[in-house]
Amino acid sequence: MKIHSDDFRVAPGKNVDLKKWPVQVRPFYKSKDHFKEQLAGHKEQLAAQQELLYASNQHALLLIFQAMDAAGKDGAIKHVMSGVNPQGCSVFSFKHPSATELQHDFLWRTTVCQPERGRIGIFNRSYYEEVLIVRVHPEILRAQNLPAEVADGKQFWDDRFRSIQAHEKHLYRNGTRIVKFFLHISREEQRKRFLARLADPQKNWKFSGDDLKERGHWKEYRQAYEACLAATSTAHAPWFVVPADDKQNAWLIISHIIVETLKDLKMKFPAPADARTLAALRRQLKK
Amino acid sequence: MKIHSDDFRVAPGKNVDLKKWPVQVRPFYKSKDHFKEQLAGHKEQLAAQQELLYASNQHALLLIFQAMDAAGKDGAIKHVMSGVNPQGCSVFSFKHPSATELQHDFLWRTTVCQPERGRIGIFNRSYYEEVLIVRVHPEILRAQNLPAEVADGKQFWDDRFRSIQAHEKHLYRNGTRIVKFFLHISREEQRKRFLARLADPQKNWKFSGDDLKERGHWKEYRQAYEACLAATSTAHAPWFVVPADDKQNAWLIISHIIVETLKDLKMKFPAPADARTLAALRRQLKK
Repeated sequence: MKIHSDDFRVAPGKNVDLKKWPVQVRPFYKSKDHFKEQLAGHKEQLAAQQELLYASNQHALLLIFQAMDAAGKDGAIKHVMSGVNPQGCSVFSFKHPSATELQHDFLWRTTVCQPERGRIGIFNRSYYEEVLIVRVHPEILRAQNLPAEVADGKQFWDDRFRSIQAHEKHLYRNGTRIVKFFLHISREEQRKRFLARLADPQKNWKFSGDDLKERGHWKEYRQAYEACLAATSTAHAPWFVVPADDKQNAWLIISHIIVETLKDLKMKFPAPADARTLAALRRQLKK
Repeated sequence: MKIHSDDFRVAPGKNVDLKKWPVQVRPFYKSKDHFKEQLAGHKEQLAAQQELLYASNQHALLLIFQAMDAAGKDGAIKHVMSGVNPQGCSVFSFKHPSATELQHDFLWRTTVCQPERGRIGIFNRSYYEEVLIVRVHPEILRAQNLPAEVADGKQFWDDRFRSIQAHEKHLYRNGTRIVKFFLHISREEQRKRFLARLADPQKNWKFSGDDLKERGHWKEYRQAYEACLAATSTAHAPWFVVPADDKQNAWLIISHIIVETLKDLKMKFPAPADARTLAALRRQLKK
């Protein structure tokens, strides 16, 4: 069974009802070994494509991961990306903004971290938090010190979407390919994972009462995600809704989509000097 | 005689023919003393407005200066802005981009330097160089390592304008007011100033053969400026064409426009605590 990226892509301009998007699909692996074999294959191709990206030095790749808590963002980044040369790949996690970051427009702090040409940048959470957690918690917006004429505008969230669309289009036009993953889990699966975390001494330090509080906002988050996915999935910066109740399956889907995106660039190693120049260089070295 | 900012503002969506825009207008001062008195008045108002900007901490002000060589950008920044508290004001000069900067999209290096809320940021040259010098010298563009499908596009310059428009609109929506000055001098005035520079041992170190070479591209620069001013003067980020053959007059016009922009924000000092709290604080201090 082959993975088709388009099955998970959010079509531009379409409404999104997350209750209709699966949190689980038939696995793309038949056994544990088959899973390992496939993931290893994807990672090999990813490493090869990254070398091309680095050598041709024209495009950048930006991967954005967003999800409810415990949907497996960190795990996906770890298991999919760990075969890649870290010299060409940086991960940035965006948590509470700093005082300096709050003094700037809402795209500033991630822009500073945008990947250079030839590199892969991974955002674990991103500027999308500005239309997700900030939308669910108006008190965060109030702390952003926006001028009243901005923050009170009826168009406020649409304007944020417009800013994001224009920003991504600009990046696209300048060589950055953007792929956005929403890891989609069920509320029940989150409950199980939270319980497992609480029972695990290597993981329960990660857990706090805040996580439970956010879980209480499940529906508001779902609605915020639906508005966001519908408004910002575009041809040049698509969102993929990845069924994430089965982690292994999610890793196969994600790695497949990344490899496919890079292959679509049809990159080549830069042409070497002509044969005569190479021969002359060889002679010099042999002297 | 009063200065009217609108006389110098480029109307959005209008064609621009710089040969019809004056390089000199009737001076707004009657004597040297009168000039000094007026400039001092403007600077006093500017300093007062800047305190409000800083205290209210919602808006930022971005001032962009662009011009042909020797039009007086540095002098204008020095004479208009030197009354302002440097704690709330930073100047950035953008010359040749660094290797790291070239690895990013063309708005990145200036975005990193965007002023925080409550501050004034001054760009001496700016991202506009990307549609000016880069347009006049295609070899600079070739060195930017853009993917072929980007750099060869017919829409290339329009796309750069679109990126700039969207970027400025985003900044505006997030509280940054942008004012852009094109200091407009005649070719003859540039010749005189170049000759004066060459004769002055405190200034001739600034001069190189490159300056003369660029002077040879006068017409191409004028055309690039015309296209740029027409495409990017908007209600939220206007361009002002400042007649700059008379430097003193230019400083009066520029300082007037800046003060007016800040006054339009109708800023207030944040409300203090109520009378009872203030009285309690006073009692505590007197103990």
